[in-house]
Amino acid sequence: MRVSQLYAPTLRETPAEAEVVSHQLMLRAGMIRKAAGGVYTYLPLAWKVLKKIEAIVREEMDAKGGQELLMPIIQPAEMWQETGRWDVYGEEMFRLRDRHSRNFCLGPTHEEMITTLVRSDVRSYRQLPLLLYQIQNKYRDEIRPRFGLMRGREFIMKDLYSFDRDEAGLDESYNKMYDAYSRIFSRCGLEFRPVEADSGAIGGSGSHEFMVIADSGEAAIAFCSACDYAANVEKAELQAIEVEADGTAVLPLERVATPNMKSIKEVTRFLGMDATRIIKTIAYQTDKGPVLALVRGDHEVNEIKLKNKLDCLYLELANEAVIAEVLESCAGFLGPVKAQNVTVVADHTVMLMRDAVCGANSQDVHYLHVQPQRDIQPAIVADIRLIQENDPCPRCGAPVKTARGIEVGQVFKLHTKYSQALNAVYLDENGKEAPMVMGCYGVGVSRTMAAAIEQNHDENGIIWPVPIAPYQVIVVPVNAKDAAQMALAEKIYGELSAAGVETILDDRNERPGVKFKDADLIGYPLRVIIGPKTLQEGKVEVKVRRSGEIEFFAIEQCSGKVKELLGKI
Amino acid sequence: MRVSQLYAPTLRETPAEAEVVSHQLMLRAGMIRKAAGGVYTYLPLAWKVLKKIEAIVREEMDAKGGQELLMPIIQPAEMWQETGRWDVYGEEMFRLRDRHSRNFCLGPTHEEMITTLVRSDVRSYRQLPLLLYQIQNKYRDEIRPRFGLMRGREFIMKDLYSFDRDEAGLDESYNKMYDAYSRIFSRCGLEFRPVEADSGAIGGSGSHEFMVIADSGEAAIAFCSACDYAANVEKAELQAIEVEADGTAVLPLERVATPNMKSIKEVTRFLGMDATRIIKTIAYQTDKGPVLALVRGDHEVNEIKLKNKLDCLYLELANEAVIAEVLESCAGFLGPVKAQNVTVVADHTVMLMRDAVCGANSQDVHYLHVQPQRDIQPAIVADIRLIQENDPCPRCGAPVKTARGIEVGQVFKLHTKYSQALNAVYLDENGKEAPMVMGCYGVGVSRTMAAAIEQNHDENGIIWPVPIAPYQVIVVPVNAKDAAQMALAEKIYGELSAAGVETILDDRNERPGVKFKDADLIGYPLRVIIGPKTLQEGKVEVKVRRSGEIEFFAIEQCSGKVKELLGKI
Repeated sequence: MRVSQLYAPTLRETPAEAEVVSHQLMLRAGMIRKAAGGVYTYLPLAWKVLKKIEAIVREEMDAKGGQELLMPIIQPAEMWQETGRWDVYGEEMFRLRDRHSRNFCLGPTHEEMITTLVRSDVRSYRQLPLLLYQIQNKYRDEIRPRFGLMRGREFIMKDLYSFDRDEAGLDESYNKMYDAYSRIFSRCGLEFRPVEADSGAIGGSGSHEFMVIADSGEAAIAFCSACDYAANVEKAELQAIEVEADGTAVLPLERVATPNMKSIKEVTRFLGMDATRIIKTIAYQTDKGPVLALVRGDHEVNEIKLKNKLDCLYLELANEAVIAEVLESCAGFLGPVKAQNVTVVADHTVMLMRDAVCGANSQDVHYLHVQPQRDIQPAIVADIRLIQENDPCPRCGAPVKTARGIEVGQVFKLHTKYSQALNAVYLDENGKEAPMVMGCYGVGVSRTMAAAIEQNHDENGIIWPVPIAPYQVIVVPVNAKDAAQMALAEKIYGELSAAGVETILDDRNERPGVKFKDADLIGYPLRVIIGPKTLQEGKVEVKVRRSGEIEFFAIEQCSGKVKELLGKI
Repeated sequence: MRVSQLYAPTLRETPAEAEVVSHQLMLRAGMIRKAAGGVYTYLPLAWKVLKKIEAIVREEMDAKGGQELLMPIIQPAEMWQETGRWDVYGEEMFRLRDRHSRNFCLGPTHEEMITTLVRSDVRSYRQLPLLLYQIQNKYRDEIRPRFGLMRGREFIMKDLYSFDRDEAGLDESYNKMYDAYSRIFSRCGLEFRPVEADSGAIGGSGSHEFMVIADSGEAAIAFCSACDYAANVEKAELQAIEVEADGTAVLPLERVATPNMKSIKEVTRFLGMDATRIIKTIAYQTDKGPVLALVRGDHEVNEIKLKNKLDCLYLELANEAVIAEVLESCAGFLGPVKAQNVTVVADHTVMLMRDAVCGANSQDVHYLHVQPQRDIQPAIVADIRLIQENDPCPRCGAPVKTARGIEVGQVFKLHTKYSQALNAVYLDENGKEAPMVMGCYGVGVSRTMAAAIEQNHDENGIIWPVPIAPYQVIVVPVNAKDAAQMALAEKIYGELSAAGVETILDDRNERPGVKFKDADLIGYPLRVIIGPKTLQEGKVEVKVRRSGEIEFFAIEQCSGKVKELLGKI
């Protein structure tokens, strides 16, 4: 390919709409263009990267016995009504009617479709296991599509579904996919971590997310500094923190005036005590009524855990009206002591606190000397807090570290959730009917491209990992009008291409600065520069995009050396 | 791949819903399954074929300088409103609203999207020409989706759009695509013909369709027996047919009673004359008012030509009420003589007829001795009839032949229709603004697969052309329980696979009859059979699916010979 012909309209300015680096750089590098909020055209450079990621995904799926197929994007409502998800999905699902007023959606996922397919064609245990996958557009009508390809409304996914005879089979399929996913993201040249994950609304239990480590990541992960434990903070389990008895006297409850002292910070300063002595009380509204969640003052509520413990469909912070009218309390002075008309859920660490402080459900009043075991009667005591840096690892107890990540893949055990809802059964060895045991496994293909950029860039532009670079090498004659430079550029371009190195030639009649800037912005891993001085010396200059390192190779050795260098970086 | 693991659920019975062979065979061979009317899942075998067709398309597009990108499927209404097609498209367009009630459609085509894209990034003549393409799902909400993949509502297309500086550039791009399309369908192993085509509702002028020749084709084509002229019958031009003066006296008009003689056949029999003496009169309703179309009794009206000549948006047969009330005539006795309140359009051959017969616009009455030049005053005289077998070729005059075909590709000159509507302009060498000159070029990828089957099948199933077969060779041990047979089968399977031949091994523990039936149904080009007798003789049997021919090869030569044979068939 020649740059003069490539359709990659680069921009000098960063478009104001782009908040994150990957979005900014993909717009500037002429890789994507917006068609509507969260809906993008992938221009040729982006499409080349996507095809490389897809090829890696495909190879790893096939290596595990996956079979590729392609399901429809428009899906009839009936199968979604059978599982009840037609109603559950809400506004996030794009819906439409055909000319005969039949209801369809644009597939946000394909559990219903694949299960309906398999139930009609699979009868016998001999046809199992099955690993079926596709790579195609998915649709989610996000309230606020943002961050470019990171949270789009139309995006490319690989989704694989496994069908097994039993839980042991599911474990095997799950492990295959876990392994394949690790290989995929390694092969893409990304720094990533598989972490334990909550299995969310899609159902089932047992799940890992694959996180590309990047400071801009929307997800927080915790990982152990000693063992190999790693989890999404939403999921990371925590033991209760024991406090050793210090001989403090057990005193009766005492009301204390705390005028305008609403936050933990204000209360601790006012009362001259540590946040570990405060019981933080948060009020929620849920479909199961109002809830008070209690955590220690230096801790945060993990709403995912809380929601799971309550087994509720929605959960949101209670507003002031609810706090006043239903809980007969006031914001800033909420507390669990003598709380009525509300479900109290206490983090297990709270129940081990001694001589604590909490709001007294009256304006400007707190309780002192709270003994949780004596004064609080929670409906549920459980692990409901968010893990924090230096919390003990739930496996080995060593302090955990935290990092931010971008979720690019997830593996799920669905068990029989969908096969039961849709009656996908098979006959086992004894002729007995049993539901198929399912798993589902997704890779965000377009998001992986964006995540690669979030992880690999500098102030000048993208730094593509070699395996997914649109072109691995760019050959830049400093002066395209100089016949000798162009002749050598063409020669090296031809040699590298013939050697299987994906190469692009910047044949434009532009100043070298413009060409170098574009090359840095687009992020080709290696740049071969042909200038008057090196040419005279019988050499070419090769610059590594990531390190900025420069090497000089003799012209006749150039393509061999470049290939070698590509293997190293 | 092993058949025991392949997800290709074959069916013994032909599903009742399937009307055409390709639909029947793809269902029976476990290649597709219906999700909704006109909406299908492509199972692994079909997906393999589609990927092969896509790969061929991609190579040929790239060879012509095409650059692949991917545009959204969901398209905002605004760009369609700019060209006016939001209203024109009617019910055939799938429409939806997002959660903010913004209007979108599912792209039936992408002229608006690509033109909007290019207009914002291309400024200079130096950036042209551009050939941009994608391969993806298209959506058309057909009234009656039918014939399986032949007329679906969700289907896979390759669409390329060319942007040139001027008409000469467009001609060049058009010729490149014409050439690429010829190569694509040749490489797919299909018998096809490019034919001149009407450019239809999409706009522009200058178009060819690529037709796969098959008796079941929905389109009729005419081609010359002598020169290389070929056209869709909708488009094929015709000269007026001169009639030599035969000295018959020119007589005055005469009314003749023709009781109940409504059809051409009845009238000719009753009056004892040839259909070439009758003026056939057909009444239409159009958005430009009622129309009478006249053709000779042995000819048919070409409604596409008629519509183009009238430049109307819709045209349909007039019903009896219109004929009675507006035309003051009656069905079966329509005629152009003294016709009022109606636009008369005469085929140019009609105007050369002598002493003709036509309806007299009264029940049971015709006119004799009609002299068109004397008695009829048409508003338009033009070529408005359908070409027929043995009509003279418009190029060389030799008799044409007709055949049926399946349209699998079309190339179109759009000229400046969309660039003007959407203001896609560039600055030329003199800094003057000019609209880009466009073309569009489509390949029906999923339809090509179906057309390949319509053209290549027999009573036992599909006969894949080698280049697009899901696997080229199937290795069938007659008895999978026989260790010697299985060992040899594995060996040959391994050798062929290693030699780059896509091979599948039927390792199922089934009767040979079942395995052979499935192999014939799915249509692998070659079958290698390993049976006890040949094994003893140190040979394998190789059967060619298409011809039924059988060859025996020595075991040690098998893979070489199979490869050779594949090259020949």
